[in-house]
Order: sequence, then C-alpha cells, then structure tokens
Amino acid sequence: MSDLNVVRLITKKRDGGLLAPDEIAALIAAYTAGDVPDYQMSAFLMAAFLRGLSDDETVALTRAMLHSGTVLDLSDIEGVKVDKHSTGGVGDKVSLVLAPMVAACGVPVPMISGRGLGHTGGTLDKLEAIPGFDVGLSIERYREVLAEVGTVLIGQTGEIAPADKALYALRDVTGTVESIPLIAASILSKKLAEGIDALVLDVKVGRGAFMKDETRARKLAETLVRVGIGFGTPTVALLTNMDTPLGRAIGNGPETAEAIRLLKEETPAGGPCDDVVEVTLALAGEMLHLGRATESPEAGRRLASAALRDGWSFGILQEIVAAQGGDVAALDDPDALMGEPVATVTADTSGFVADIDPLALGYAAVDLGAGRARKEDDVDPKAGFVLHKTLGERVEAGDVLAQIYASDPSRADTEAVRAAFTLGAAPPTPRPLLLDRFDGTRWERGMGNAD
Amino acid sequence: MSDLNVVRLITKKRDGGLLAPDEIAALIAAYTAGDVPDYQMSAFLMAAFLRGLSDDETVALTRAMLHSGTVLDLSDIEGVKVDKHSTGGVGDKVSLVLAPMVAACGVPVPMISGRGLGHTGGTLDKLEAIPGFDVGLSIERYREVLAEVGTVLIGQTGEIAPADKALYALRDVTGTVESIPLIAASILSKKLAEGIDALVLDVKVGRGAFMKDETRARKLAETLVRVGIGFGTPTVALLTNMDTPLGRAIGNGPETAEAIRLLKEETPAGGPCDDVVEVTLALAGEMLHLGRATESPEAGRRLASAALRDGWSFGILQEIVAAQGGDVAALDDPDALMGEPVATVTADTSGFVADIDPLALGYAAVDLGAGRARKEDDVDPKAGFVLHKTLGERVEAGDVLAQIYASDPSRADTEAVRAAFTLGAAPPTPRPLLLDRFDGTRWERGMGNAD
Repeated sequence: MSDLNVVRLITKKRDGGLLAPDEIAALIAAYTAGDVPDYQMSAFLMAAFLRGLSDDETVALTRAMLHSGTVLDLSDIEGVKVDKHSTGGVGDKVSLVLAPMVAACGVPVPMISGRGLGHTGGTLDKLEAIPGFDVGLSIERYREVLAEVGTVLIGQTGEIAPADKALYALRDVTGTVESIPLIAASILSKKLAEGIDALVLDVKVGRGAFMKDETRARKLAETLVRVGIGFGTPTVALLTNMDTPLGRAIGNGPETAEAIRLLKEETPAGGPCDDVVEVTLALAGEMLHLGRATESPEAGRRLASAALRDGWSFGILQEIVAAQGGDVAALDDPDALMGEPVATVTADTSGFVADIDPLALGYAAVDLGAGRARKEDDVDPKAGFVLHKTLGERVEAGDVLAQIYASDPSRADTEAVRAAFTLGAAPPTPRPLLLDRFDGTRWERGMGNAD
Repeated sequence: MSDLNVVRLITKKRDGGLLAPDEIAALIAAYTAGDVPDYQMSAFLMAAFLRGLSDDETVALTRAMLHSGTVLDLSDIEGVKVDKHSTGGVGDKVSLVLAPMVAACGVPVPMISGRGLGHTGGTLDKLEAIPGFDVGLSIERYREVLAEVGTVLIGQTGEIAPADKALYALRDVTGTVESIPLIAASILSKKLAEGIDALVLDVKVGRGAFMKDETRARKLAETLVRVGIGFGTPTVALLTNMDTPLGRAIGNGPETAEAIRLLKEETPAGGPCDDVVEVTLALAGEMLHLGRATESPEAGRRLASAALRDGWSFGILQEIVAAQGGDVAALDDPDALMGEPVATVTADTSGFVADIDPLALGYAAVDLGAGRARKEDDVDPKAGFVLHKTLGERVEAGDVLAQIYASDPSRADTEAVRAAFTLGAAPPTPRPLLLDRFDGTRWERGMGNAD
C-alpha cells in the first residue's frame, strides 16, 4: 500500500474510530519493513491503548503480526497439536510438568516460550537451568524433535512474528504494555505461528499476576479465546489464582528442580506443591480434550494424572532433555541445579502463615539474580527461594520460613524474604485456585473442582 | 534529574494522573538534550492529547519549552512591549497592517511569526513577497530594529524555544496537533520568549480556522489567556469569525499587496476589505490598551484608526521594510508583488454570493504554490487569488468572481476557485466578525461592535 497515510490511521484510532483489517495489515507490514518510524508506531499504540481495539481489529492485528514472519505448518506431524500459554506468575513452573505430561498421553505439544519478564520467571530460563539444554533449535530441528518425542520447548526465533518482537520492545519503553487487545495480539501471534491446532490459556489473576484485577483478567481471557476462535483455533482459558506463589520454589534452578521432583513423583501429596499439580492437571485435562485424546476435560485430567503416577511423563522429560542437548543425568539429582542454600530465613514470632506476597518475592528473586533488571542481563540459574512454610501453616518463632539459593551469596536479602510473609493469629480463609473457565461461549465457575 | 523514569511519567499521564511541574520540566529538558527518544515523547504526547493537561500542567509545559532556549529580555527598550498572535486563517494578513499601526501609536511590537501551515498562510512568507525583506535577523539586530522603528518582524530562530520546534515537528507526524493545551503551550512558549510584556490573541473560529468548533475555540482562548496570565503577562483573546476568507486577497504577494494598500488608505471604505480593517482595529485597540497608550480598548481603536488615516502607520511600514533590508520602492506599486493575473474565474449562473469556502480556497492556494505541501517546499510569492465578488454581492452569469495569480500559469485551477463560491437566490444572513472577548475573568459578547 504505497499511499499509506500513517497520520490518518493514528488520528482515526485517536478519535475512537475503527480501522479496517487492510489498514492494520498495511500499518504492521510497513512498520516491520522499517517504513514507519517508532515514533509514529508508539503514538498509534498509545491511541490504541486508550481507545481500545475491537475484536475485529484485534484479529486483524494478530493476523498482521503472525504473518510478519514464518507461520509453521505442522500438518505433516500426526495428531492435534495443542499448546498452553500462561500470562505469567510467581513460581509458575507448570509448563515444565505439563508439556511432558500431555505428550505422554499422545497429544503433541509444540511449545515456544519466553524469558523472565519483570517479577515473573520464564520457561526458557528455567529450562536452561538444566546444563546443556538448548532452547535455540532451528525450525527444522524443532519439527524433528516434536515428531520424535511428542513435545519440543524452544524460544521465539527471529523468524517467528518479528513484528511482535519489535512492537513488544517498543511497548515496554512507551507505557503501552498493559492493554488487553495488545497483550492478546502479542500472545496469539506467537502461539498461532507455532503451527498449533488448539490452545489452552492460563490467565493468572491476583497480586502476583500482571492482571491484578479480576474484571480485567476475565476480559483478557475473553479476548484471547474469542480471537483464537476467530482464527479457527479452538481455544479455552482457565482463570487461576495468583495471590500467592505457586508451589514452594521460586527462581529458575529451584523451580526446575521442583518440576523434576513432581514428574518423578518424589513430592508427597497433601503438601505445599499440591497447587502446582492441581493447576497442571486442570490445564492438561483441557489440552487432552482439545487434542481429542479424551471426551471431556475431566477425563483428560484423569488420564494426565495416570501419566504422572505411572512415570510416563518423567520418561518424556528425559527424552526431551536428551533431544535438546541437555544433561539427562542432571535429572537424577535435581537439588544440584540450585546448589546449597546460602541463607536461611526464620520467623521472628509465632503464628499462622496468613499471607505470602508473590510480588515481593518475585522482585526479591530479580534482585537476587533470578530475573533481569534489563533485557540484556544474564540470569543466575541457581538463584531463588524455597519456601518451607506455606499458607495456613503453624509457625513457631525461629522456624525456617524459607531458604535462599544463589551463586553470589552477597545478594541474599533475608529481610526482603521475611517481609513477604505475614504471620497472623489464625490461618486465612483459603481461596480457590481454579477460578473460572471460558470456552468462547460461557464462563463456568470452579471448573477444576468438580471432579 | 538523573533518575528520570520516562515510562513512569508516560503511564501517569496515560492513566489520567497529573504531572508535577518538576516532572514536566525534567521531561522536556531531557527531550531537548536528546536523552528522551522521539518514540517515548510521541507516546507521551498522545497520552496528553487524549487525557488532557490541567492549566497547571500547561503552565509547566509552557515554562519548560520557553526555557529550552533563549528568553529575550527587552526591558532596556522603553515602553510596554505587546504582540499579537493569530491561530491562523485564510486571507489573514492582519499582522502586516497591525504591527506598523500599533508601533505608530507608540507601543513597541516585537513580533516573531511563523510560516504557512496547511491551508493557512504565514506572516513570514507574506513579508518575503517584498523583495529583499529579511526575516532572519540576529537577536542583536532584532533589538536594534525594535528600538529604532518601534516594531520588528522576524521568524523563530534556533535560539527561541527549540523544544517547541522539535515537539511541533513530532506532533505534526504523530496525529497530536489538535490538542488545546499542546497548542497553547506551543504558542505561548514562543511568544513569551520574545520578551513581551502583554499579548493579544486572535482566536479564529469557523470552517477556515484550525478550530472549526466554537466550543473548542473558546476553550483554546481561555487556556491561552489563563496560562499567559499565569506567567504574569496580561493577555486578552478575541474570538473572530473565519467562516469566509478575510479580505479579498489570498496568497503571499496578493495579501501583502492588499495590506500595503490598506496602510496607504487606497482601499475604499464600505468595500470587501472592511473586515480586515475591523479585525485589525479591534486587535490594535486591545494592544494599545494593554500597552498603556490608551485607557480602554475602545480609545485604542480610535487612536489606531487615526494612525491609519493620517499615514503614520504606512510610514512605519516603510521604515521597517528599510530596516529589514527590503525594497522600499516596492511599496509604491503593490500590484507588482503579484504580477498580472494568469486566469480569470467567472460565474456560470446568476445570483447572490451565498457562501465562499475558505478551506477550499486555502487548499487551492497551496496547490497553486502559495503554500507548502511539505515543510521543505518553496512557496511562489506571486501565487494566490483576488476575489472580485464578496459575500452577499449580486452576480450575473459571466461576471468575474476571482482572478488567479501565479508564476506558473499551468498550476491555475479555475474550477477549484469557482467551486468555492456558492451562488444563491438571496444574500446570506451576515454573521458578526468579532464574536467574543475574553480577558481572563469573563467573556464579553461582540466586544468590537459597541464603538
């Protein structure tokens, strides 16, 4: 579109107008080609942030970003390919357990993940805590591994949705991140480029999530599902609680170790990692149902549970680590991924654990080296926390609340970790972990709790 | 402010917050220094456009832009220095008549003007239609001419409000021009940097103005006056009608010729240039009152009228042309500034002139070469139109409606000019030219019509 008038498109959106699909397509194509400067795109993004984008505009934006790069065609690989995306939380190591579990049940899981962002960790950083694990496979090798193992876990390559990469970097520095349609287009353009047939979304809500407000989280879930379905890709979203950290471990090595132990069934049921299992099985149930392995999400959950108990899932983890160049022997001793604790956090007083603040722990983990203050920073794979007390537990003064792991002990801040715990006279009223489910038609309450 | 967090300032404005004066000062200082990239500033501008700026924020923005460059101190030049700014219209040659007129009455007028913008002309382009006239004086020469002649007419130098120059260029390409607080800060930062003691604003409203809507024009006038007064600079705004072109001439040479003839009293009263005289005298009255030459705007108007009749004003024009290197002899034959007409536009039918569309004529003038399609374009000083029929006049088929002047006759488009005229069965109901007056305290109706 040689006569693209960018100022006209910006002012149209600024004044609350709706852009036509070909206008959005032309804008994104010209931006990707370097013909629209960042300063025009950031004005457009702010106008879109404040005026919103309709579902049709969001579909058009997603399509334009998706087609800015390679769109993989995995139709020659047998089965209904299903992936999961989480909007990010603290202690969210679900992908590491889920991908092998669903693949073990016969549904292929091609997964392109991201790195840690702000106070939340990223699946790629967690995988790289396993020595040698290569998240930078070529597209060719990505196909091979998926066909051989049933799952593959890589990072966004330069070929996948380059417009999203450029737009995301620009949004990050122009105050235009927290827009529901822009978030939805960013997530879906990457996921749909993977070559998937169906998608399950874990939309986190609460203090430790990017969406702290339930109304906005529901709106994001609805937008993601409607736009996904608008592309002909069956999509389901679960709304899950992120008011407290998920599981016991926070940080790359600690979380990967926790995920390995869960897959090895070394974690006792009825303990503090039950929440990880609960969310993982709920998501696995949806994926197996969408992947046509079971007739319902509930049946999917039961199948996934069996795949965990019987060791099939751990077998797939071993295969994927081997296929992606990782040290399979490291799976024998997951504790080695985090080393010895460098500091111990104890309780000053007695009481019940009334609250654990995930945001405070997320930022403390970044300060410790588990995350990045700037994009170009390296992460310390060992850095993180293991919580020894969980919500509602009884604590005596002097009891260990948490242990700190890090390559550089001088960065350990016991005060910051202690401050994330609130002790009270009574245990708090538990809040359900699995809140709601949206399938494009209707919301269902407590979708994971009926089984 | 080394810890300036630009994203925090953008998001604060994006979410409808109010920025503190030192936050705005730091942002503009860092932008001027090149430490804030255009893509962040354009996101901020769009957020400011859509969320608005309070009067306090507008004062802070104006102050920051004003102090991005040299702020002239003219206190060593005797008298209360007063300037006028027009928000721009079609056929608006008022400054060329007004500055000599007010200076002739003893009030110094230091005037920094702009070039043509969109469909409207610019005072600098009009002055340059006089051979040799130099609008690029140094600051030192600017002072000298003002002291000697009583007025001086130059363009914005690199030293005056460079932040405004950079921001204006950015707004132009990011759809953030038509924001009242941003317009007000842009106008006032330049005007206050001139070293003036008081300011009169001609806020144009109607089809041929940038503000087509009276509510918005009144809001702009209020913002300009309140912010000007907030700086301790007495400021008055007149709201004037721009639904039809001002006077008979449109285009640089034609308008300058018209202004010269008005100052030479060669234009008969009761004709189509009465509107130019009416607006000029109203503005002159305000300037002479603010400049303490008279006790009221009405008395100022009478004094200005005498200065026109007695030839004092034309004497000042001759002096200023001489002082700024222009050809004083050119004032003897103003018609030479536009040459011979290259085309004549005649009426197809008979009737009364029911309407003349200023926007259509403004754009036709740009197409003819009188304005710029792009900033770097040259203008043709001869290009323009002289209207031979004015609103309400009786026209017979074949009568001359207008003549076209241009260095390049092939650019003349008689159809475009004819289409700007609407002939009807009856003359239109006249609308007052001088609408309202705002002095910071209250609006007065028809302030120019009582005398």
